[in-house]
Amino acid sequence: MRIAELSEASGVPRATVKYYLREGLLQPGTALGPTQAEYDERHLARLRLIRALVEVGGLSLAAVRGVVRAAEDPALAPHEAFGVAYAAIGEGAAGGAEPPADDARARVDAWLDDHGWDVDPGAPARAALAAALRVTDAYGYPDALLVADGFAQALAPVAAREVAFIEPGSARDEMVERVVVGTLVYERALAATRRLLLEHLSASRFADG
Amino acid sequence: MRIAELSEASGVPRATVKYYLREGLLQPGTALGPTQAEYDERHLARLRLIRALVEVGGLSLAAVRGVVRAAEDPALAPHEAFGVAYAAIGEGAAGGAEPPADDARARVDAWLDDHGWDVDPGAPARAALAAALRVTDAYGYPDALLVADGFAQALAPVAAREVAFIEPGSARDEMVERVVVGTLVYERALAATRRLLLEHLSASRFADG
Repeated sequence: MRIAELSEASGVPRATVKYYLREGLLQPGTALGPTQAEYDERHLARLRLIRALVEVGGLSLAAVRGVVRAAEDPALAPHEAFGVAYAAIGEGAAGGAEPPADDARARVDAWLDDHGWDVDPGAPARAALAAALRVTDAYGYPDALLVADGFAQALAPVAAREVAFIEPGSARDEMVERVVVGTLVYERALAATRRLLLEHLSASRFADG
Repeated sequence: MRIAELSEASGVPRATVKYYLREGLLQPGTALGPTQAEYDERHLARLRLIRALVEVGGLSLAAVRGVVRAAEDPALAPHEAFGVAYAAIGEGAAGGAEPPADDARARVDAWLDDHGWDVDPGAPARAALAAALRVTDAYGYPDALLVADGFAQALAPVAAREVAFIEPGSARDEMVERVVVGTLVYERALAATRRLLLEHLSASRFADG
């Protein structure tokens, strides 16, 4: 397809498609002449990935570039490319710059070792869990890691189904898109479901005043 | 205790304590003279609640005022005060202004009715779940509400333990603090746990390339 059709099929404005081409986010098409090129399904998948990173992930174009580079790097195994994607979308959960290593962070790392989970040492979710642990310590609340044990057990079957949605052997762009959109959109659904459930349960518990 | 001791016991600087008094966020102490007053455990609990709302909840002072007013309003049942707190901390999850009612929002409301959950019609988590549903529709992903069914089932026992941590008959400020801090800090722990678990599971699934 030509650029006009690519724009129409993807829903990405033509000027934006050209911008992504200039920036190297979208791979070049097959040249048909000095000003014409042919695009295919791979370009559609890439545009879909870029849109997902920007619209669902809220990523800057610089961060999008990092994820796209990882997705197309043949030297990286899929799970390594996913690690780059997890790190890029992790800023929200981790809440900014990582504080210096402390007891909370060491406890999270040990907790992951105990569970035998294979997670990048720089994964922002480690810092996010440590931040939660600092708050439960400071407020004298039930230990965030003990509660996280319950969460991990509860989530295991659901998480297994989520990961099964990423099909091995499918195109890299599509796999990375599913990692990013799936992680973020179901996280939002999970947080909302928990809040609705908590509000319902506390209404039941305290309705009598 | 006097204001200096209140400041020391709460960890809130004296100037900030005085500011909260002037703003009416902190209830007045018992007057001992024209410039002296006596404070007690209720003032400590209030300062702890304010700190929790600001530091953990990231609330503006205007939003803090709304929650504090609800906490101290004898005309509100506890679960009504909690509803005000849930709404105040809901902006993050709901992501800004609520869009006009649409099919996704109607489906979320019907889903809640099906579950028989007693949740405020204006609860931001309804909008957050509808937002997730719009994304799964737009991207052709597994329906957010079907996935939320799995989340609800998985979370039910953990959520029941969380709500049990709010003790009926305890001071209102303390109950509202537990609703706010508990909701937010374990939500962060939950999201982080899920991300760590997903990263681990996808590493296992895709380690072979």
